[in-house]
Amino acid sequence: MDEALQARLNRMFYPSSIAVIGAGNAPDKVGHAIMDSIITGGFKGRIYPVHPRHESVLGLPVFRSLDRLPEVPDLAVVALNQYSTVQATRALSEMGVGGASIIAGGYAEMGEEGRQLQNDLQVAAGDMPVVGPNTLGFLNTWADLNVTFYPRVLRRGMVSFLSQSGGIGLALKGKADDEGLGFSKWIGVGNRVNLEFHTLLEFLANDPHTNVIGIFAEGCSDPRKLMSTIRSVTERKPVIFYKGGRGKGADRVTISHTGAAAGEDAIWNGALIQAGAEVVYSAPEMIAVCKALSIARRPEGKKIGIFTHTAGPSIVAWDILQEIPGCELSNLKPETLDRIAEILGPSVPVVYKNPVDGAAGAFLAAPYHDIAEAILADPSVDVLLAIFCEHKNWPYPSDALIDLAKKYPKPIIACFIGTVQKIEPNRRQLHEAGVPTYVMPEEAAHGLAALLKR
Amino acid sequence: MDEALQARLNRMFYPSSIAVIGAGNAPDKVGHAIMDSIITGGFKGRIYPVHPRHESVLGLPVFRSLDRLPEVPDLAVVALNQYSTVQATRALSEMGVGGASIIAGGYAEMGEEGRQLQNDLQVAAGDMPVVGPNTLGFLNTWADLNVTFYPRVLRRGMVSFLSQSGGIGLALKGKADDEGLGFSKWIGVGNRVNLEFHTLLEFLANDPHTNVIGIFAEGCSDPRKLMSTIRSVTERKPVIFYKGGRGKGADRVTISHTGAAAGEDAIWNGALIQAGAEVVYSAPEMIAVCKALSIARRPEGKKIGIFTHTAGPSIVAWDILQEIPGCELSNLKPETLDRIAEILGPSVPVVYKNPVDGAAGAFLAAPYHDIAEAILADPSVDVLLAIFCEHKNWPYPSDALIDLAKKYPKPIIACFIGTVQKIEPNRRQLHEAGVPTYVMPEEAAHGLAALLKR
Repeated sequence: MDEALQARLNRMFYPSSIAVIGAGNAPDKVGHAIMDSIITGGFKGRIYPVHPRHESVLGLPVFRSLDRLPEVPDLAVVALNQYSTVQATRALSEMGVGGASIIAGGYAEMGEEGRQLQNDLQVAAGDMPVVGPNTLGFLNTWADLNVTFYPRVLRRGMVSFLSQSGGIGLALKGKADDEGLGFSKWIGVGNRVNLEFHTLLEFLANDPHTNVIGIFAEGCSDPRKLMSTIRSVTERKPVIFYKGGRGKGADRVTISHTGAAAGEDAIWNGALIQAGAEVVYSAPEMIAVCKALSIARRPEGKKIGIFTHTAGPSIVAWDILQEIPGCELSNLKPETLDRIAEILGPSVPVVYKNPVDGAAGAFLAAPYHDIAEAILADPSVDVLLAIFCEHKNWPYPSDALIDLAKKYPKPIIACFIGTVQKIEPNRRQLHEAGVPTYVMPEEAAHGLAALLKR
Repeated sequence: MDEALQARLNRMFYPSSIAVIGAGNAPDKVGHAIMDSIITGGFKGRIYPVHPRHESVLGLPVFRSLDRLPEVPDLAVVALNQYSTVQATRALSEMGVGGASIIAGGYAEMGEEGRQLQNDLQVAAGDMPVVGPNTLGFLNTWADLNVTFYPRVLRRGMVSFLSQSGGIGLALKGKADDEGLGFSKWIGVGNRVNLEFHTLLEFLANDPHTNVIGIFAEGCSDPRKLMSTIRSVTERKPVIFYKGGRGKGADRVTISHTGAAAGEDAIWNGALIQAGAEVVYSAPEMIAVCKALSIARRPEGKKIGIFTHTAGPSIVAWDILQEIPGCELSNLKPETLDRIAEILGPSVPVVYKNPVDGAAGAFLAAPYHDIAEAILADPSVDVLLAIFCEHKNWPYPSDALIDLAKKYPKPIIACFIGTVQKIEPNRRQLHEAGVPTYVMPEEAAHGLAALLKR
């Protein structure tokens, strides 16, 4: 990416000043919600609401027009209708604003007339980078920045998302919130007048606060360029791709969304896999995979050890893991099995093998720790999947896994079965220790599977 | 099922008295956790802890031996080791106890010696029905009954589960809790000495508090009998089947679980589908499908209307729905499209078609209601999928959907994107009104797809 564009994107995504064109006081209007988002998100810079008639919005003085602003803002959000937006965009570009986020729909997704209007918008934007139009906007937790019209609390992390759909983007954010996964950037790309997927992907590849990139897309204007960019990015950072509009009649539902046809599913899939992307098939799978890749270490090999006190979850996890080429259940060394037998003692009736089912012998944290350690210490094991079920009287063995994560360089994946809410404090501590933690065994397996493919 | 067995199963699953053999005071032991469960679950009947040395457990007087009990209990829970269990089971059967739940492992899953011990247990049980051995136990919300060693709050509903795995059973319960789905019975079948899947399935088919039956199984002793039972049950109630142990090497992980080999995956799948079962591939999918089938009405046909204010979720939902034979996106009547145009007014730039994307015109509850009504009133629509994203300033249009559910006989599925926790109050009201509600669009689509197959 050329340096001028890189600098400009840095300026707009890490702004020190924001103008909101069309800011207002009606709580049910987009122009108000964006102001609410900027404040709720905790933005520390200067905020300039712009509106020809209002006096103040959410306690901040309103500027009547762009020429009255005390400085040229780093970022402008345009919350006007599709026609006024073109005019405002031209003015912003001429002022030298860093970049703009453009909310209005009514462009290429509306047929010929809309396509013409989108061309006008593109010309008006000139060399000013634009997120949108026809988008929720974007977020950057590392700048305490929410310029979507969805006021939300932000949680920092290292995963960034590009989404062609605000709704799927919000589903990803909701699932990430439920799963205790923080994120870095979230960008609703919309109709993409001058920031295509490949440009934003390069920006994220260079972003020091991003280590994993998730993309939801229905289609794009230059798939070849996207694939070559993915190929170069995946050498440095994992790219996970969720393709919408896969089925018959998909174009009927996608074309009027952001003006892009969905394209042949099989071609997309083949190209994505060849480019090194990880392909996922749902929002929960996207979050499961991003969680593992952003939190866990990479294993040295593909031999897994599974430790559980209840066999079923290890069985369904293996159903998923056995599909990964080269992945195998490690053959534990005889001395490891002896050590496990010693810890469990004679009264726990289990068969000593991998998956290790400690049954009642693994309910308490101390033996859970020691058995997990025996498995991690076995040289034939590259990664540990540790399963435990929520119980009122037997706490999750979080401290045990955190201790072992410090002692052993091998990755540990925790599957702590229960509810997403109750598990929250344990999960937070485990994530800080580099142990991605899930409540559903299938999601834990999808996360681990992604690690094994890297 | 013969009447005597039916009566006996009713007696044990809806008991008025329970004996807990091996009840104790150590909070980290199974015999204590079961007592805790019975009390936490809110059981209203008589509870008799039995132990040779304790005085009281959780405030209840302990009986030193079975012959000192003041009555023959309807249900006994045996929390002893695998050897003492055989003896206790014989005594319980001879006393004429209604039925028993047997926790200990160490039977058929342990090889030849264990198989012999399991035979002894079977003989000891005689005609007394036994859940287990090697199980967590079971729950029946309609009797405020939790005789597992996992003390949990119970939430009533109409879905019953049979699970060969305690861990997957707990994953199902956790996901149901997160998703606001109540259940009726939850039975960890374990090694099944005299209550096979098919017997319990028949019991659930006759249970007035069950309208949907979910099964997780790795294998069973009489697949033919299971399939013929499923065939007869699915005529009355949907049966949803999640088969574990699908992949290569599955027997290696399943055989030492409950002593059953997993069997050929393709054969199972074909037989299950032929028998009329709905096959699912994960715990979240199981809950998604059970939710729709237990809460929603059945549609008259397979023509769907989708209403959203953000296109992406409708696109991924259609990716799933288009795989259902006969399912189509309804061609809305011109008068319906006119009505939608009238509600949205000229300033909302959207293409009028199905899926109906109301964009900013569908943020508020009133137009959301009216557009949803226009779609439901269209004679070419059999079912409505209604999508909305959580927002601080625009509340979920729950009242609108509840009103429409009262006015129109067609099923409505709500996809309210957000987090599972925040959506809780809305979801509860919608479920009461017969509108299954999801946060993930893919799960909403799986639920709706299951309705279309019935």
